[in-house]
Amino acid sequence: MTDQNTGQPADLDPDHGKVRSVGIVEPQVMTFDEPLPLRSGRTLDHYELVYETYGELNESASNAILICHALSGHHHAAGYHSEQDSKPGWWDACIGPGKAIDTERYFVVSLNNLGGCHGSTGPQSINPDTGKQWGPDFPVMAVRDWVKSQARLADRLGIECWLAVVGGSLGGMQALRWSIDYPDRLRGAAAIASAPKLTAQNIAFNEVARQAIINDPSFHHGHYAEHGDYPKQGLMLARMLGHITYLSDAGMREKFGRDLKTGTLSFDYDVDFQVESYLRHQGENFSSTFDANTYLLMTKALDYFDPAADHDHDLARCLAQAKARFLVVAFSTDWRFAPERSEEIVNALIHAGKDVSYLEIDAPQGHDAFLFPIKPYVRALSGFLARLTEEAEQASEVTHAG
Amino acid sequence: MTDQNTGQPADLDPDHGKVRSVGIVEPQVMTFDEPLPLRSGRTLDHYELVYETYGELNESASNAILICHALSGHHHAAGYHSEQDSKPGWWDACIGPGKAIDTERYFVVSLNNLGGCHGSTGPQSINPDTGKQWGPDFPVMAVRDWVKSQARLADRLGIECWLAVVGGSLGGMQALRWSIDYPDRLRGAAAIASAPKLTAQNIAFNEVARQAIINDPSFHHGHYAEHGDYPKQGLMLARMLGHITYLSDAGMREKFGRDLKTGTLSFDYDVDFQVESYLRHQGENFSSTFDANTYLLMTKALDYFDPAADHDHDLARCLAQAKARFLVVAFSTDWRFAPERSEEIVNALIHAGKDVSYLEIDAPQGHDAFLFPIKPYVRALSGFLARLTEEAEQASEVTHAG
Repeated sequence: MTDQNTGQPADLDPDHGKVRSVGIVEPQVMTFDEPLPLRSGRTLDHYELVYETYGELNESASNAILICHALSGHHHAAGYHSEQDSKPGWWDACIGPGKAIDTERYFVVSLNNLGGCHGSTGPQSINPDTGKQWGPDFPVMAVRDWVKSQARLADRLGIECWLAVVGGSLGGMQALRWSIDYPDRLRGAAAIASAPKLTAQNIAFNEVARQAIINDPSFHHGHYAEHGDYPKQGLMLARMLGHITYLSDAGMREKFGRDLKTGTLSFDYDVDFQVESYLRHQGENFSSTFDANTYLLMTKALDYFDPAADHDHDLARCLAQAKARFLVVAFSTDWRFAPERSEEIVNALIHAGKDVSYLEIDAPQGHDAFLFPIKPYVRALSGFLARLTEEAEQASEVTHAG
Repeated sequence: MTDQNTGQPADLDPDHGKVRSVGIVEPQVMTFDEPLPLRSGRTLDHYELVYETYGELNESASNAILICHALSGHHHAAGYHSEQDSKPGWWDACIGPGKAIDTERYFVVSLNNLGGCHGSTGPQSINPDTGKQWGPDFPVMAVRDWVKSQARLADRLGIECWLAVVGGSLGGMQALRWSIDYPDRLRGAAAIASAPKLTAQNIAFNEVARQAIINDPSFHHGHYAEHGDYPKQGLMLARMLGHITYLSDAGMREKFGRDLKTGTLSFDYDVDFQVESYLRHQGENFSSTFDANTYLLMTKALDYFDPAADHDHDLARCLAQAKARFLVVAFSTDWRFAPERSEEIVNALIHAGKDVSYLEIDAPQGHDAFLFPIKPYVRALSGFLARLTEEAEQASEVTHAG
């Protein structure tokens, strides 16, 4: 998951500290035996999705919200796995009773995407054809493949139409893809701190991260598990680099400035500044818990996402088939997916005649801001969901009256 | 040197193609036996500086310009080393007859800094105490150490006072340091695409680059030469990352966009996009010619530069002792050292009551823009030098009259 340790913003939801968490949650597993044809031309014959749910599905199954995760995310978005857990799920700040995504009103579903390393079928799973871990041979996933698998999960959960599909960053790309591929299966799509496709600079950063992993001698062409090895250094570098792009220049300046770790310059090549120590720590932690092949796969899914490519690179035409209402949110200091990138989505939606609300939130946390319960952002998200709920109820009354 | 292959800007000096180069140049070596006390507390007892000169020193030695290089630069700033050379020096676009730094008027001195890997004493030199290469034991250099060594070179060349000290990026930091440490030994200081100190984000990028090198198993704690090895992969990663920060998002978008290398997506982890291929190529080239220990040393010199730190972090007070006229230039799309960073210098200079001209040049090349002969930039630089020349001539007349 994108890191949340970026300090406390000034304009957090003041009620946040008082509201409760969803409490102890238990991941569930859904098994699928129907082959899943993939964008790459390959097929996944059998797979499992691990997911969590928070709140209760109502009788009409009209209050379900799908949470889509970003590059390093997973299904554990809210609550705790045990009383001993020191940290809640990655989006606990926004999902829970009385929070932006209010689990007293909504039934929230959060899954680990295919290719992940937190329980859903991915590179660490056993390839039934070989009896060994898939490793680097696991199919490269596209955002549309994830959305297809999520639609099948919705079928199993009895959810014909999501109240909303919500995601930040790569998760926002999934929300967009849902609106295009399954226009009748969601009322709302919230794309937060996202982009309609990566720029050359975005791809370049991903490529440096991949090269760091692939060139680590412990990578063994992705077959590190068979070698009893692990490309920890490469993954650490990839994460350190990624982490810089999740934070803002201003936010880093405020948090670390040029503060020294020990008070004096070392005049050697070890840590001098606090920011170096922080980054190494982040890289260390991440590389102990994440799978390198999954990291590669997630970055490729990001690079490949470009829904307009199938429509002569005309994003408005691509989005013409969507029926959802849209909420697009960007953050002022996010330079990974800057507000201009969200505006590309918004302009295309307006051009296509769609219903879209757009907010640029003034926040110092850079790309990571989407994880924080910043007041105007929380209000926009909860207001968007409330409006969709009203419409769902009206639609239900019309159906009943008919 | 910072790479120049970033495409041709629209507003290049139209005369550039017509003017001549300085032609064939030959590097020279100056040997110093007077110990050089360093910022780190260590001393360099004996050292050599390799340098080139272009143009002629006038009788009063009042037309000399010192060029200070950036992270990966060296003494070969203009002209060719042989008829067979396919590429001229790194700043040939701006140094030569009729160019921004006109070698028909000025005597230009360009050296390789201590700790470099192009001929001046550095990690690849023999440590007289051990009879082996210095490697990682070469002293970490500070910008003030370089300036001190440059002042000694000036002594030897009979230059009491530079007409100007000029540099881009880390070179600009040397120009600033000159104005502070030797206020009577330069008439002008030009700090181009520079900053008064690195931000946490700048340091963070440098740290990832260092970690890429240090964690390469071929690094051997910097003693790779003794092991007959070389951390090529680490240096390649460092350069790929650095290169992204030298270009602008807009420039990369224009040059590469999302163009594919082969026309189709691979659905594996090899190159898909042109930008990946370009970056790998840049990384490959650089890592074949640059020394890893020098790379580490240069990044630390950047991190450590903070002249205001000795003056209660008050840059204006720090610059109060300067007597030079200043030219500060920034480029609109430079996000490594954004215009705001140059403005910090300018505001401090104004506050200190100094003579400063500031230009923010609209250019798509990002940080690399300082290498290009962009018309308003060329005009500003040549105008600045012409004004300093007039003043030098007036001063000389006064002296003669006296």
